[in-house]
Amino acid sequence: MSPATPSALHHLDNLGSASGYVEEIYEVVGALTLFDQFTVAECVELCKHMDCYAAATHAPILREGDEGDFLIIVLTGSVLVSKAGPASVAQEITRVGPGGVLGEMSWVDGQTRFASCVANQPTDFAVLSRHSLNQLMLAQPQLANKILLLVLQLVTARLRDTTARLLPPWESDLI
Amino acid sequence: MSPATPSALHHLDNLGSASGYVEEIYEVVGALTLFDQFTVAECVELCKHMDCYAAATHAPILREGDEGDFLIIVLTGSVLVSKAGPASVAQEITRVGPGGVLGEMSWVDGQTRFASCVANQPTDFAVLSRHSLNQLMLAQPQLANKILLLVLQLVTARLRDTTARLLPPWESDLI
Repeated sequence: MSPATPSALHHLDNLGSASGYVEEIYEVVGALTLFDQFTVAECVELCKHMDCYAAATHAPILREGDEGDFLIIVLTGSVLVSKAGPASVAQEITRVGPGGVLGEMSWVDGQTRFASCVANQPTDFAVLSRHSLNQLMLAQPQLANKILLLVLQLVTARLRDTTARLLPPWESDLI
Repeated sequence: MSPATPSALHHLDNLGSASGYVEEIYEVVGALTLFDQFTVAECVELCKHMDCYAAATHAPILREGDEGDFLIIVLTGSVLVSKAGPASVAQEITRVGPGGVLGEMSWVDGQTRFASCVANQPTDFAVLSRHSLNQLMLAQPQLANKILLLVLQLVTARLRDTTARLLPPWESDLI
């Protein structure tokens, strides 16, 4: 069963079920190193719960301040992440390429989007909603464990990196 | 079956299974708001996989740079979190009281401890090892889902907070 399209993505080209992109998605979820690896069969299951989308260059994907309950996995292309600065001019924070995950903070905590994401070149991505996670937790809890561990590793890596950037200069030199 | 004592905690007073502290621990895990709540029965199960410890004032709990594969849940008291500065003088980062979780970054990613934690007053805490998580994932995957979601919410809250502190002044004023 293909998941419903989030309304925030109605302006983009829906490529259909992620089942057609198992190989690309397996490259991302196979990055889980500390715990049991994802099997290809598990990735096939996960893909049944995701749709893929295509965004043209400059198309908005996530918008700062919006509600949002899905995360995206970048498959091809590049996404520019920015926050609004003075006079609403976008200030670039980072760029994310294939294998990157975005939108996971709102997916986890239900708060509004922290930053905006715009396709920097033609970009395909997969969408995993909180609703799909809830379905997986009920029907395939061991697969849900692996997805949660993967996202937890990603968020933890960002937290280590961000915290290190906050340290005084003597520490920044060491990292 | 009570979990083995991590060698890094051998200097502290082992209070035995967390099954004697279900009420205190339920207060912490009950904070999970976005997803299905923990039941008391699930908290009882979780407690079977944790031990509790007592640390006297000034006793070290986690040491920056150490290996470590467990997280702790502070039940009573207060923990001072610091990093070594110039001439190895500890620079305080924050203090964490009852309900706080510490050590979750190494628990997730297997890297060394980012900061040191010392009891700031007599402090009791529960310990959840990665080994116990792995056991729960195998035997009780739906309970493991809830534990992972809880930790994911905690790490995400820290990431939002830390990222906001990195923003230029015009943004910091808004948060």
